[in-house]
Amino acid sequence: MVPRSSPLVASRLDEFRLIRDLHRRFGRTGPAVVCGIGDDAAIIRPSPGRHLILTTDLLAEGIHFNLGTATLEDVGYKAAVANLSDIAAMGGIPHYVLVAVALPASRRPAEVEQFYQGLMGACRSHGVQLVGGDTSASLRSVFISLTMTGSVEPRRALTRNGARVGDLVYVTGTLGDSLAGLTLFATGRTPRSAGSAGRKRFLLHGDRYRRALMLRHLRPTPRIGEGRLLSTQRLATAAIDVSDGLSGDLAHVCEQSGVGAEIEASALPLSPACRAYAAAAGLDPVGIALRGGEDYELLFTVPPHKRATLERRAREAGYRFSRIGTIRPKRIGLRLKGIDGVSRRLEILSYRHFQAGQTTQREAAWSR
Amino acid sequence: MVPRSSPLVASRLDEFRLIRDLHRRFGRTGPAVVCGIGDDAAIIRPSPGRHLILTTDLLAEGIHFNLGTATLEDVGYKAAVANLSDIAAMGGIPHYVLVAVALPASRRPAEVEQFYQGLMGACRSHGVQLVGGDTSASLRSVFISLTMTGSVEPRRALTRNGARVGDLVYVTGTLGDSLAGLTLFATGRTPRSAGSAGRKRFLLHGDRYRRALMLRHLRPTPRIGEGRLLSTQRLATAAIDVSDGLSGDLAHVCEQSGVGAEIEASALPLSPACRAYAAAAGLDPVGIALRGGEDYELLFTVPPHKRATLERRAREAGYRFSRIGTIRPKRIGLRLKGIDGVSRRLEILSYRHFQAGQTTQREAAWSR
Repeated sequence: MVPRSSPLVASRLDEFRLIRDLHRRFGRTGPAVVCGIGDDAAIIRPSPGRHLILTTDLLAEGIHFNLGTATLEDVGYKAAVANLSDIAAMGGIPHYVLVAVALPASRRPAEVEQFYQGLMGACRSHGVQLVGGDTSASLRSVFISLTMTGSVEPRRALTRNGARVGDLVYVTGTLGDSLAGLTLFATGRTPRSAGSAGRKRFLLHGDRYRRALMLRHLRPTPRIGEGRLLSTQRLATAAIDVSDGLSGDLAHVCEQSGVGAEIEASALPLSPACRAYAAAAGLDPVGIALRGGEDYELLFTVPPHKRATLERRAREAGYRFSRIGTIRPKRIGLRLKGIDGVSRRLEILSYRHFQAGQTTQREAAWSR
Repeated sequence: MVPRSSPLVASRLDEFRLIRDLHRRFGRTGPAVVCGIGDDAAIIRPSPGRHLILTTDLLAEGIHFNLGTATLEDVGYKAAVANLSDIAAMGGIPHYVLVAVALPASRRPAEVEQFYQGLMGACRSHGVQLVGGDTSASLRSVFISLTMTGSVEPRRALTRNGARVGDLVYVTGTLGDSLAGLTLFATGRTPRSAGSAGRKRFLLHGDRYRRALMLRHLRPTPRIGEGRLLSTQRLATAAIDVSDGLSGDLAHVCEQSGVGAEIEASALPLSPACRAYAAAAGLDPVGIALRGGEDYELLFTVPPHKRATLERRAREAGYRFSRIGTIRPKRIGLRLKGIDGVSRRLEILSYRHFQAGQTTQREAAWSR
């Protein structure tokens, strides 16, 4: 039993008072927030006629991020993007965030402020307001839990289970940049290889490519606008965000839709920076695109008769949508047509953070 | 980088598959849930014409609970009650819960199932459905994050900032039972004292009192019905749930309302079991009532002209509401009129879990 007068408690209370001040500072909200931070719960006036989207993520130090190599600002930013991307993958508009943080005594107030800077930096870009939170001590490591809400029009949400045989498989943006950027952080400034022409090309572009890949790793873009186009115009039958790697996330869609798929290696969208990186490092760029996690691109399926409309709307909006394959019957499984034209079973090359005490791609992907 | 074929990952995946199965089993939902567990996010058809309530809590092993002395079923139950009670304190109806759990490899699947049993036991009693979750590994300790949603009619929410000078202060149920029950767990089966008449009286009622107090500690009741009466009938000007102790939670209301308060010691509602426990243990029952945390009773303020209506409606509904004091001007501060009739400054005797590495009441309160 620790009465308030204990000096040890007082010092901890000071720290938590600082966090409450941060909550107030970052928790300025608009007119739809009837009651924000500081009461038993938040009260929100919901968007009339819309459905509510809810998503939650728990991030554990040593599993999802490593504070020896990542800053709490990076962690905050990517935590927000992971949630924003979940809402994008449902075709929704993000609205509110609640954040719960457990901190060991060793973390300095400035680091906590950095975390909120990163978190709210990503949230504010999409009009997301901080409406609630919980702060607690932790014995050893930092734990962060985010809950984000959004909204979507009735019958317009993009789910994982609507893909049908014959649908075309698309992906937004480019794949593999985040993994390439991560590897640049992990292994030094330029890829090692046997003095190839690729290395020369990568070095020729020098800082520009390096910065582009590192930025894609540290500050990925949630595809909110793209998701909204797909949902409001009813263009997609299924969607998911690429957080575990294209092959693994495609497997989720196929499993839940009861279908198979065939992907064409030559159609996978790669950035010039990622191609140059792969050449310089002596790696297969297709492998990077298939297994790279945390690109936060959208993977979605489109009925063939909507293809022309989709591609026209994408051009008008300036979105990059690449057609990478076709939904096939379930018995076909997941297949990859290689650059050589030969169709093979697609290996699921996701990297997961299920293994404690060992560096995983997911953990590494939060490092810098 | 850990491909799926790694045997270590496979064993962890099996475990997480079990948790996904639990999610599916406990995640059966009604027609308002458009999309539940298994997609990027949950989609809910909101209650028309109502405001949305959002609350989140993060519970850390070693801070909020100790798995050496509490079961994960206890932890799950009380985690749900803490969130249900937040919604009760806003005058709302609880609807949906999202749960994120980080587990070290040392936790057995059966324990994880117990956690969901406890959590959903409390949730189902109030019609709350599990719609989302996130599961992760943790290096050492268990972390649990709950987010609960609810709804309330526009302009009917009970906030902390509406108390006015002259309002009457009420509390539901009885106070201090949870702390007494905790102490019985912590110190053995009966209170120690110098062979007093009180000890004889406590022993006379033996198992009945002991069980009643322990049950109030392990399975507290969120006051949803009481909160709804106060909000729908516009009877309260402010409300909070007693989670940190009456004195501390009264201080929150007074601070946010810009007022003071005077409480009468003789009016504090104590159960016969708690009175007998206090007598047997040689403790002041008023002290137990003022500092006992986790009673999850509602503390609320009522304008004097609504007193008769409030007390009639409480009788009709079978609710126990006790008038324990009056809201006073801010300059008066918080005062307690003792059993001796003398008014003193009310000490804030809340116990907090801000201090890592030391047993706090909040931690102990999760133990058994």
